[in-house]
Amino acid sequence: WKGAPELSSADGKFKFKVRGRLNVDYNGINQDKPITGDPDVSAVELRRARLGVEGVMFYDWVYKFELDFAGDKTAIKDAYVEYTGLPVDLKAGHFKTYNSLEAQMSANYITFMEKAAFIEAFTIDRLIGGGVSYDENKHWTAEAGIFGTAPEAGQTTYFDDGTTLSARLTAAPLNRERRVVHLGASVRDRDAPSQSRDGSEDPLFLYRARGADLHLADRFVFTPQFGQSDTLWALEGAVVLGSFSVQGEYAQDTVHTAAAQASADPTYDGWYVDASWFLTGESRPYANGQFVRVKVKNPVNGGSGGWGAWQVAGRYDVVDLSDQSTAIAGCTGCGEQETWLIGVNWYLNDYTRLMFNVNQSEINGGINDGAEIAGIGMRAQLDW
Amino acid sequence: WKGAPELSSADGKFKFKVRGRLNVDYNGINQDKPITGDPDVSAVELRRARLGVEGVMFYDWVYKFELDFAGDKTAIKDAYVEYTGLPVDLKAGHFKTYNSLEAQMSANYITFMEKAAFIEAFTIDRLIGGGVSYDENKHWTAEAGIFGTAPEAGQTTYFDDGTTLSARLTAAPLNRERRVVHLGASVRDRDAPSQSRDGSEDPLFLYRARGADLHLADRFVFTPQFGQSDTLWALEGAVVLGSFSVQGEYAQDTVHTAAAQASADPTYDGWYVDASWFLTGESRPYANGQFVRVKVKNPVNGGSGGWGAWQVAGRYDVVDLSDQSTAIAGCTGCGEQETWLIGVNWYLNDYTRLMFNVNQSEINGGINDGAEIAGIGMRAQLDW
Amino acid sequence: WKGAPELSSADGKFKFKVRGRLNVDYNGINQDKPITGDPDVSAVELRRARLGVEGVMFYDWVYKFELDFAGDKTAIKDAYVEYTGLPVDLKAGHFKTYNSLEAQMSANYITFMEKAAFIEAFTIDRLIGGGVSYDENKHWTAEAGIFGTAPEAGQTTYFDDGTTLSARLTAAPLNRERRVVHLGASVRDRDAPSQSRDGSEDPLFLYRARGADLHLADRFVFTPQFGQSDTLWALEGAVVLGSFSVQGEYAQDTVHTAAAQASADPTYDGWYVDASWFLTGESRPYANGQFVRVKVKNPVNGGSGGWGAWQVAGRYDVVDLSDQSTAIAGCTGCGEQETWLIGVNWYLNDYTRLMFNVNQSEINGGINDGAEIAGIGMRAQLDW
Repeated sequence: WKGAPELSSADGKFKFKVRGRLNVDYNGINQDKPITGDPDVSAVELRRARLGVEGVMFYDWVYKFELDFAGDKTAIKDAYVEYTGLPVDLKAGHFKTYNSLEAQMSANYITFMEKAAFIEAFTIDRLIGGGVSYDENKHWTAEAGIFGTAPEAGQTTYFDDGTTLSARLTAAPLNRERRVVHLGASVRDRDAPSQSRDGSEDPLFLYRARGADLHLADRFVFTPQFGQSDTLWALEGAVVLGSFSVQGEYAQDTVHTAAAQASADPTYDGWYVDASWFLTGESRPYANGQFVRVKVKNPVNGGSGGWGAWQVAGRYDVVDLSDQSTAIAGCTGCGEQETWLIGVNWYLNDYTRLMFNVNQSEINGGINDGAEIAGIGMRAQLDW
Repeated sequence: WKGAPELSSADGKFKFKVRGRLNVDYNGINQDKPITGDPDVSAVELRRARLGVEGVMFYDWVYKFELDFAGDKTAIKDAYVEYTGLPVDLKAGHFKTYNSLEAQMSANYITFMEKAAFIEAFTIDRLIGGGVSYDENKHWTAEAGIFGTAPEAGQTTYFDDGTTLSARLTAAPLNRERRVVHLGASVRDRDAPSQSRDGSEDPLFLYRARGADLHLADRFVFTPQFGQSDTLWALEGAVVLGSFSVQGEYAQDTVHTAAAQASADPTYDGWYVDASWFLTGESRPYANGQFVRVKVKNPVNGGSGGWGAWQVAGRYDVVDLSDQSTAIAGCTGCGEQETWLIGVNWYLNDYTRLMFNVNQSEINGGINDGAEIAGIGMRAQLDW
Repeated sequence: WKGAPELSSADGKFKFKVRGRLNVDYNGINQDKPITGDPDVSAVELRRARLGVEGVMFYDWVYKFELDFAGDKTAIKDAYVEYTGLPVDLKAGHFKTYNSLEAQMSANYITFMEKAAFIEAFTIDRLIGGGVSYDENKHWTAEAGIFGTAPEAGQTTYFDDGTTLSARLTAAPLNRERRVVHLGASVRDRDAPSQSRDGSEDPLFLYRARGADLHLADRFVFTPQFGQSDTLWALEGAVVLGSFSVQGEYAQDTVHTAAAQASADPTYDGWYVDASWFLTGESRPYANGQFVRVKVKNPVNGGSGGWGAWQVAGRYDVVDLSDQSTAIAGCTGCGEQETWLIGVNWYLNDYTRLMFNVNQSEINGGINDGAEIAGIGMRAQLDW
């Protein structure tokens, strides 16, 4: 039983579990209207509303299929089959490219409400493809994959999808209970799909991020749609010392494009560092090159009166899209965003969490230069 | 086992159940083309096609998540988490505002194929927000909530959502097996969201209802989109006397708007009264301020030869959107609709029902004045 | 346990199972750009991404509800309730009209990646309606149904749906383990829905098929949207002789339309014949007038080292939309497509299959006359 029942056949050949999650969010944001022209936000949303299944089919075949219906739209999330009968695992389907610690982690387990800004800015996301991974050693993992670049949603004609290559290597020289040192590096190279047949969709890449790391904020740093290919490098590091943890990542993405759109190839970058502390003694659990579900020592319930787990955290998060902005046509929004975040998380039990974030961004460069975007976010999260 | 299996963990901390329903409908409707210009309808649809889950997470946390896919569109229905470890329950997510007996009830349990016309006309529906409720006394319930007014579907920019406040109080001075007296009152106050950023969506409220209380009919009474805020009051009453039941509601909604669109604030109202009788001896079960699943005494099946439950019912249903119609710009469709309904329901077992409705509406006022909309509806319903 | 657990209540009155499937596809296609103008395809997709449930409700009521989310779109597939307590079964909901052996079969069990071209060309698909079927005799089945013609997706107004009638009869004079002779015939008559209210959707029928029987290919034979009604006849035959099997179908569809659009009523036809052979000794199982899940003798798994089931197959598949093309306005694409297919299937276990197809089409007639469309398809398939 893992939130929802995990069913197994008598002979152990098969397993099956229904899975899903709900995130109920409120965002209140001052978007600095005098500079940006965008009014304030006070809005609720179901940030995630997911339903899916996972299972094991005849010993060695693992599958996972999860859908997000937030906003009354359908979006396929993890949807893959994986053969685990060899020393390395072989996977095919729709899953995340192998880049960035925080991008790899389930949003159920991240410390703040939204992942670091560079993950959105550099579009580190799921694609359809195949991968090979090794994660059976406690001290390192290695993964690589090849994907079609084109997202599936809204496509009506299919020509050359483009190709995305991705690989990630992690090491955990120290990996004990409540003591972890994690290091990692990843790379991604991708080509944009060929022009869509009727010209209605521009397949080139763009780069952008939401203000104050809040999902209902507008985007105040953004590039035009101009990238024909790009190459991303990312470095990761994290340390767990009992209830205390620090984590940081750095990523840079070099964009290649045709001369007509840009007379120089920009290199964008982003990085963050965060620190978090459990007041109630829990520690961040680590497995297979990422952090996983927190085990709450004294869950809240009417009968026993536990207090759950309380965690406080801070992050400094930068994404810089200002490089070569004068050399790129239409680069009016190409600026840098620096964001401070403070977060408090209340884990009521292993599957239920309330989150509270206070965030502030400063925009440097571009048409929103000097804007300060400040806001709060609240979330009720439950997964099964 | 409740239609589908309800699974519990050995220690009783967790429960989980998959849920859903299918409604297969036929509508045949004479839309009085000489007056309305709308041709007749003869059409089938999946009125509801739902899949979801519900469960208990670690004793006190209840969650429910259900999706409707009718018409190949995705619509989130109930999607909430609720803490039940206190004397009052705390809820967050997407759920119904606390108004109207029939609006609160699951469509699985209502007597006619469609709910009363004022529920659609006054948009008593689910919103995203938070609520507090008390339902542990057999003789009364109390509920109140605060919601963002904006529906989630199709939104692309988020500014001020508007606010909806809602509360409901019910009393059951008599609440015994086969003998129920139910009384209730509710209120709702809501502000429209601020103008959407690109002006493409008009966030103001409109009021309208489908002809003959049939889902595939067109709407012959309707207002323009003009409400900036409105205040709704509703009263409920119901009596169960063995196999016989009567039920009625009255609601009025006062609309406030800017002078440019309307020189007076209209007050719309709607009401219905229905009576139903089980030929086969069943009674309408009541719990927590609403009617719930009918228990069929002799379910149909090939082996035992029971006849299931048979219910006959009649309703008179009025919605009046004619108030101040001359003072509101564009109020060409502002009229009143009076509808007679006769229904026969065959409950084959607790989870399967065939419904047959014969309905007739008369339109008074507006461009469809004098139209008579008559039709039949048939439904095969199964839920799990 | 059937891939996923099938749960039953203690008294056997109820059963319940979650179901679904994933198809991860790659297509590489040479679309003969010099003739057709369409560039080559190299693309991935989730061909099917389904989730649903099925169950038995109180002995005699069977239900099934399955959704496809491929392409981040929602599409209801089987969604019906069926009463099985009589000698004949009564069904209502969204399900396949009773035509064509391969159209009836689950895509999980077909021999090639895509069904025969005439099934798409003549739109043999699911509709909403009611059906009656008899399948309790080992040697024959009979089925008939009446449906609304209009598909549900994207409909906003409902008038006259049109009517589709369908019936199918099959016989299996020989039906033993590893020895089957199957014969069948079916008919379908359908009227197009009436004009949609705002004129935005053209409800008339069109006929078309994808190049090289590959899902990501463009369509090189196609008619305009001109059919007001049509009548389809189809014949089926199949033989299983141990591990060897041959199968073929012939269908013809006579289109009726108004004089303004066509001065003659064309009759289109399509047919295919395929042969397949299991190298590893399996046989194609047959039940109720169609072929069902292959039982793999030695499933692959790391422990036992079975090789799974290997099947090789070939098909010749023709669809001819060229009849009366000069008499129909706008019939520029009305041609014939002849396709050769070679397939290799690797069944790793009963629920997991890898497929590889090499296909080539030749187009005769119409604007793409003489084009040769050649491509490969690969699929990883898993269902539960």
